Amino acid sequence: MERVTIGIIGAGRIGKLHAENLIQFPQVKLKTISDIYTSSITQWAKGLGFEQITTDYCEILNDSTIDAVFVCSPTTTHSQIIIDAARAGKHIFCEKPISFSVEETERVLEVVKETGVIFQVGFNRRFDHNFKKVHDTVKAGTIGEPHVLKITSRDPEPPPADYIKNSGGMFMDMSIHDFDMARFLVGCEVEEVYVQATSLIDPVFSELGDVDTAIIMLTFENGTIGVIDNSRKAVYGYDQRVEVFGAKGVVSVQNDLPNTVEISTMDGSWKENPKHFFLERYDEAYKTEVEGFLNSILIGSKVVCDGNDGLQAEYIAKAAKLSYVKGVPIKLKDIKVLIK
Amino acid sequence: MERVTIGIIGAGRIGKLHAENLIQFPQVKLKTISDIYTSSITQWAKGLGFEQITTDYCEILNDSTIDAVFVCSPTTTHSQIIIDAARAGKHIFCEKPISFSVEETERVLEVVKETGVIFQVGFNRRFDHNFKKVHDTVKAGTIGEPHVLKITSRDPEPPPADYIKNSGGMFMDMSIHDFDMARFLVGCEVEEVYVQATSLIDPVFSELGDVDTAIIMLTFENGTIGVIDNSRKAVYGYDQRVEVFGAKGVVSVQNDLPNTVEISTMDGSWKENPKHFFLERYDEAYKTEVEGFLNSILIGSKVVCDGNDGLQAEYIAKAAKLSYVKGVPIKLKDIKVLIK
Amino acid sequence: MERVTIGIIGAGRIGKLHAENLIQFPQVKLKTISDIYTSSITQWAKGLGFEQITTDYCEILNDSTIDAVFVCSPTTTHSQIIIDAARAGKHIFCEKPISFSVEETERVLEVVKETGVIFQVGFNRRFDHNFKKVHDTVKAGTIGEPHVLKITSRDPEPPPADYIKNSGGMFMDMSIHDFDMARFLVGCEVEEVYVQATSLIDPVFSELGDVDTAIIMLTFENGTIGVIDNSRKAVYGYDQRVEVFGAKGVVSVQNDLPNTVEISTMDGSWKENPKHFFLERYDEAYKTEVEGFLNSILIGSKVVCDGNDGLQAEYIAKAAKLSYVKGVPIKLKDIKVLIK
Amino acid sequence: MERVTIGIIGAGRIGKLHAENLIQFPQVKLKTISDIYTSSITQWAKGLGFEQITTDYCEILNDSTIDAVFVCSPTTTHSQIIIDAARAGKHIFCEKPISFSVEETERVLEVVKETGVIFQVGFNRRFDHNFKKVHDTVKAGTIGEPHVLKITSRDPEPPPADYIKNSGGMFMDMSIHDFDMARFLVGCEVEEVYVQATSLIDPVFSELGDVDTAIIMLTFENGTIGVIDNSRKAVYGYDQRVEVFGAKGVVSVQNDLPNTVEISTMDGSWKENPKHFFLERYDEAYKTEVEGFLNSILIGSKVVCDGNDGLQAEYIAKAAKLSYVKGVPIKLKDIKVLIK
Repeated sequence: MERVTIGIIGAGRIGKLHAENLIQFPQVKLKTISDIYTSSITQWAKGLGFEQITTDYCEILNDSTIDAVFVCSPTTTHSQIIIDAARAGKHIFCEKPISFSVEETERVLEVVKETGVIFQVGFNRRFDHNFKKVHDTVKAGTIGEPHVLKITSRDPEPPPADYIKNSGGMFMDMSIHDFDMARFLVGCEVEEVYVQATSLIDPVFSELGDVDTAIIMLTFENGTIGVIDNSRKAVYGYDQRVEVFGAKGVVSVQNDLPNTVEISTMDGSWKENPKHFFLERYDEAYKTEVEGFLNSILIGSKVVCDGNDGLQAEYIAKAAKLSYVKGVPIKLKDIKVLIK
Repeated sequence: MERVTIGIIGAGRIGKLHAENLIQFPQVKLKTISDIYTSSITQWAKGLGFEQITTDYCEILNDSTIDAVFVCSPTTTHSQIIIDAARAGKHIFCEKPISFSVEETERVLEVVKETGVIFQVGFNRRFDHNFKKVHDTVKAGTIGEPHVLKITSRDPEPPPADYIKNSGGMFMDMSIHDFDMARFLVGCEVEEVYVQATSLIDPVFSELGDVDTAIIMLTFENGTIGVIDNSRKAVYGYDQRVEVFGAKGVVSVQNDLPNTVEISTMDGSWKENPKHFFLERYDEAYKTEVEGFLNSILIGSKVVCDGNDGLQAEYIAKAAKLSYVKGVPIKLKDIKVLIK
Repeated sequence: MERVTIGIIGAGRIGKLHAENLIQFPQVKLKTISDIYTSSITQWAKGLGFEQITTDYCEILNDSTIDAVFVCSPTTTHSQIIIDAARAGKHIFCEKPISFSVEETERVLEVVKETGVIFQVGFNRRFDHNFKKVHDTVKAGTIGEPHVLKITSRDPEPPPADYIKNSGGMFMDMSIHDFDMARFLVGCEVEEVYVQATSLIDPVFSELGDVDTAIIMLTFENGTIGVIDNSRKAVYGYDQRVEVFGAKGVVSVQNDLPNTVEISTMDGSWKENPKHFFLERYDEAYKTEVEGFLNSILIGSKVVCDGNDGLQAEYIAKAAKLSYVKGVPIKLKDIKVLIK
Repeated sequence: MERVTIGIIGAGRIGKLHAENLIQFPQVKLKTISDIYTSSITQWAKGLGFEQITTDYCEILNDSTIDAVFVCSPTTTHSQIIIDAARAGKHIFCEKPISFSVEETERVLEVVKETGVIFQVGFNRRFDHNFKKVHDTVKAGTIGEPHVLKITSRDPEPPPADYIKNSGGMFMDMSIHDFDMARFLVGCEVEEVYVQATSLIDPVFSELGDVDTAIIMLTFENGTIGVIDNSRKAVYGYDQRVEVFGAKGVVSVQNDLPNTVEISTMDGSWKENPKHFFLERYDEAYKTEVEGFLNSILIGSKVVCDGNDGLQAEYIAKAAKLSYVKGVPIKLKDIKVLIK
């Protein structure tokens, strides 16, 4: 194949973002975009060169000229769309999480497997310049066997109540990125999860049965122990750092700042806060992510985060929720058994 | 009082260190030092101006010209010495931990309380330029209510097997400093402890029933959650960092380096590793610590880390050990009940 | 105007770069590109959507549908092209320097002025996230009256001998960016220039009558003193830093790195070198620069670096050369008199 | 010799500082201190263990038990005292500058040479942990042949008018440290000096014929070019940085801060300013400096900064002053000829 014709399902913030990144690749043709509300996106979609705008995603699946779809609709719609798209023979890029239910995700991935289409999950941080370099450093053995993994992941501001309600909870919505990062960096599976979580930022979280602050301890099959700290609100901006400590050394990344300016006056020395949020921080990663997907289609390169990566992160999210509710450590294998 | 006459009990590494720092204060007279082995310290002690060297610490306690003692002998001897010293009316500076048993520590502190002598525990890190500034920043409210506390504390190399055997275990020997730091920075008591610990560095630890790598989760009475990561061996040097994240911001400290030199060549940019170990890193803190003790005696300033601080840190160490053994979170109040 | 139709004159590295950036703006139509060698660019130009490829730039100037031209041809051809373009009523973006001769540049700018077309010089660094923030900080008065300006500007590797021959010399080719930055940051004109320069990197420079290493001292009309240090070869990468020191403080920028990864092992702590060269380092600035030009055409916003900025930088370059040759400080006003 | 008996001539700030550092060395006996005003220092001197306090420095020189003297009196008195001390066979540590006149300094050094006493000049920065490491890195060849040297040296606040009057001017009083650092780091002699200097901070400087802000360009015999920027007032604290750029890389040092605390809030990220002034910044260096002098006396180790180092720095200071007055570059060899 020389060119990939693409349909996008769901024209919310992330659907638009992918479209705007895809248009920059000469090997891409953006053909159709579907959304249940089309009026507000018509002008934007035309400006980007979409030929067709529809409220029915089946039009995309039925279009034999379309090679691949981006599933950017609400999570609750993912399963059906993925199954339909896979059966229609389309390659699939799907936003995280695949679904809110690991049973459902397992079932969806069965279908994907049967059809043999290429399937990538939207764990964009694997493509980030900082995290990728940490991953490569660990993999190269520079720091020896990993002993301790630390992830700090804090949002600059909490989402609105409406979003929280349908988010699947903080572990499934936000921490899931960190669960994937943990597996990506340590290079093996998680065995046990223990969580301390609470609501310190806004009572709306506890009212909705959710949390906004958490420390999550992970133990890995290879003996590594890890810890993630999450907050829905870091007033100084999007805080995204990791550290992997091992037998021969340590590798870590700090936040990206908008510039390197330092100002010193009588009152001390000042620097910028981190780039505000994921759109600014992972600007490049979102491009590299779709480039990876295109390369898998065009030249057969390995999918960097596949269906199983999506599934494993969901197992951990489920275990985290259970640990929070029960107040005890939860073994991943017990979650898997529970499901069967 | 204008001058404090001091006796030192125990002339190991830390006893010598305190003596060499004390000599620099004009308001101090070093009179007597006791150790069960005196031959190897005679020349050093004379050079420092000690008038008397003895194998029997009671000579110090019976000397009515001596105002205060430094208890720097092995931990197993602390309780008896403290009780004797308190009854002899001497002010006491005692190295951590007070004892290996919280019951014993409670008993010792009863006696100290009855006698009314000044009692300070050797949590030197409270006096460190970095950690003190973090404490002051949190206390001043600059970062708002604390939500998350993070402490990284890694030694550059494990102690010898002989030391490990008599150390009381990693939690009581090494993590205890971090337990005190946690209470110092958050400003309230710990409620629950959960530990994941293992031996990844040297099999000698597990052979001796000890661990060398741990992540310790703490929940505090005020709702703050905290995490400590410990390792007995960071090849790049003594790693001592903390971070307190709160409603209005975050405060953190990095390691102290021997110099600020940066060298960039074709191979990248190079900086020094952290100062090697506690003697280099806390050089100044050890001086400020004894200055604080002297000020408590001379001008009645408040003791920065008193007997209760020593006791609380031991409770946490005991809970950490129990959590490690049982694999579940342990409530501090259950530890306290267990003891009664 | 709602859309700008653009012709590009010269399809070397920088011409191509501008074309690829311009294509990303929806308000741009790329129509024609000219170069004396068209064969090697045909495919690239078609892929980008150019309608016409020509060896004769006059075809661009004679095309009444074209609003603006980018002059990216060799410096020796600039003057004639600018004059022709201005007389054809095209808005002009011209790469630096305008010409190798200040007399010629003055003459060219006369014509530009008469015709009233918009004219922007390619001092891309004014649009860089770091330098722009320094400029804004100085202008806002945060550091008070500027006293001392320092610019470090080092290339990662020297250009080939062929390039050096036709470069106009280091001051006109490379330092000219720093001369413009100096005026931009201090906000007033240079009064005097003194140079110490030499060839330490490659004898080819001295063989060609050029230098590869220099320190350039500048005095400004407002009393600020400044210093630029240049090298044609920093083995660790493109070194681009500035500092402005003033009555109330100091503002500085460090280099941009490809990532924030830090690796610490027994051998010390390692970070990446700066982004390699101007294409990587000023990636964003090149986009912002053409966006600025488009905004001047479309909404009449002020040109950030105009013809006079181009001319003043050339005066300084000429004074620098003269100071180097004569070994004495040169006053800018003497250069200006010399020309009349 | 096993112990050095020392007399101190001049009990101002720096004389006291040296005394307080010397007392910490067991191999030192502080015997006598002289100052024209003794009343205010009596208690301090007794507390430190001086046996004798005198207004007549000759009592020190006539005391045959005294091995070495520290010359800490006003610069105008140095020459006579050094000559007297050398003739009395005392080893000499002398504060910078040796004198305000290079002719006088040359004459003094003649006498020192004849008598064969050990002579060290107080260029304390050579002993600083940061600068020493830069020196060692350059000397080890890590950055290859040096091409460019940069020194930033700014005081946090100007001295009082009375001090300025008798200071010998900024070049002789303040920049002289940087001239010595330049020679120390590049490892060869300066050939030419060019200065731009002005008074931007306080009109008192120009009223007294002095300057408060300067950029000083140096060319070295080995082809290295260097630049120093000086200011009498950096509101953010004592700014002491250097950078040596060479064929194989660059080495630099940043300022020392009082702690590594970083605080991030909505308003950005905050760090401490540099350690305030030379007493805080060079605290350790002052100790290492006198230790070096003691080692030269006790075990014959090489003097790190000797009389010639003092003299060469004065030549450069004189050339700097002349360049400032005449507005042209000055060759060092012309200064040396001028003197004969």
